Amino acid sequence: MSVYDKLRDLKVTLATPDPPAAAFLPTVRTGNLLFVSGHIARKDGKPWTGKLGSDLTTEQGKEAARATAIDLMSTMQAALGDLKQIKRIVKLLVLVNSAPTFAEQHLVANGASELLQEVFGSPGAHARSAIGVAALPASACVEIEMIAETE
Amino acid sequence: MSVYDKLRDLKVTLATPDPPAAAFLPTVRTGNLLFVSGHIARKDGKPWTGKLGSDLTTEQGKEAARATAIDLMSTMQAALGDLKQIKRIVKLLVLVNSAPTFAEQHLVANGASELLQEVFGSPGAHARSAIGVAALPASACVEIEMIAETE
Amino acid sequence: MSVYDKLRDLKVTLATPDPPAAAFLPTVRTGNLLFVSGHIARKDGKPWTGKLGSDLTTEQGKEAARATAIDLMSTMQAALGDLKQIKRIVKLLVLVNSAPTFAEQHLVANGASELLQEVFGSPGAHARSAIGVAALPASACVEIEMIAETE
Repeated sequence: MSVYDKLRDLKVTLATPDPPAAAFLPTVRTGNLLFVSGHIARKDGKPWTGKLGSDLTTEQGKEAARATAIDLMSTMQAALGDLKQIKRIVKLLVLVNSAPTFAEQHLVANGASELLQEVFGSPGAHARSAIGVAALPASACVEIEMIAETE
Repeated sequence: MSVYDKLRDLKVTLATPDPPAAAFLPTVRTGNLLFVSGHIARKDGKPWTGKLGSDLTTEQGKEAARATAIDLMSTMQAALGDLKQIKRIVKLLVLVNSAPTFAEQHLVANGASELLQEVFGSPGAHARSAIGVAALPASACVEIEMIAETE
Repeated sequence: MSVYDKLRDLKVTLATPDPPAAAFLPTVRTGNLLFVSGHIARKDGKPWTGKLGSDLTTEQGKEAARATAIDLMSTMQAALGDLKQIKRIVKLLVLVNSAPTFAEQHLVANGASELLQEVFGSPGAHARSAIGVAALPASACVEIEMIAETE
């Protein structure tokens, strides 16, 4: 089953990504590594704001991480032309806007990790760090950066 | 002196790592780079909890970082079969669960950096960032991710 | 126009970097990737301290990020002998010491990103993540780590 069959199955639609809101590129490729810039979570086209542990539940954070993974895939598709160019997902850094006592960043991050594994299968499994940060651009609740290996 | 002689000398025992507590892999290898997922500090098999600058001293944080480096070596050994496959340690990202005024993340991080250099000698010296984060999974005091170069 | 012409034009002087203040190397090269350690912002040779959103304005943070980019270039020059060895800037991780409500980390980070693009031109454009952290070593306001591709 191809990546695109999987996306259709999951009713996930990839969009044309907006250009970055600041002075950087969405991706840079060096050798066969694709570095994907930190993407903040978005909902209805606007930053998905809030802090885990005060404004949002773990389940909401997980949905935000899943939405961010969809945006990361849209960005990779725009960069590479075709997601079949992805040999594997290498690593995620998942940044969760956290109140000082919130301790479930790993469960929030699963929203992205599980979707990538559903879509890419075994090559979608990856190394990862999930951490709780004091604040994020535009008060977003989640930001994710990624490294992928290309063909 | 081999890595294993050094570990014996230092009375450091590598254990069989537990599987990750969430939807990710402990390591991913791409080319000759090994990306090691963020490992939280553990004590007596449980998360080593607390915040630097309020609950724990810099010295305690440094011990937690050292313990985490041991777990990172255990994970690399499990992934590669033998630590002699490590050509050099490339980079650490050391995340220190910090009260807003704590400013000694670099001294905490030395607990990991110094041990890696004792064990691996000059190829154990590495690039590094040490930062203070608002919160970590399971309320851990320290989390470390690593990139190593393999033979 | 060469990198050094550009630096002269901008009246930017690269200095001999101080050795790291802790147990790590300023850079590590693996294959054609140069990993540059997290550099904290400095002003008049001392840590540029303060928290965005309480002690410093976004504009001041942007200046601090620009100053840090100069130090990163100084470090790369010391490591490689000549900045012409840089094929491109691959990725920045920009850490902004942030009060919990500060939301302009991306604008702070532009201070570094814009300078790198002025100096290196199109190969200076890079992937990036900008995040708000609870605390940084020596109470610095900004810390930046970088990956560059070398010839």
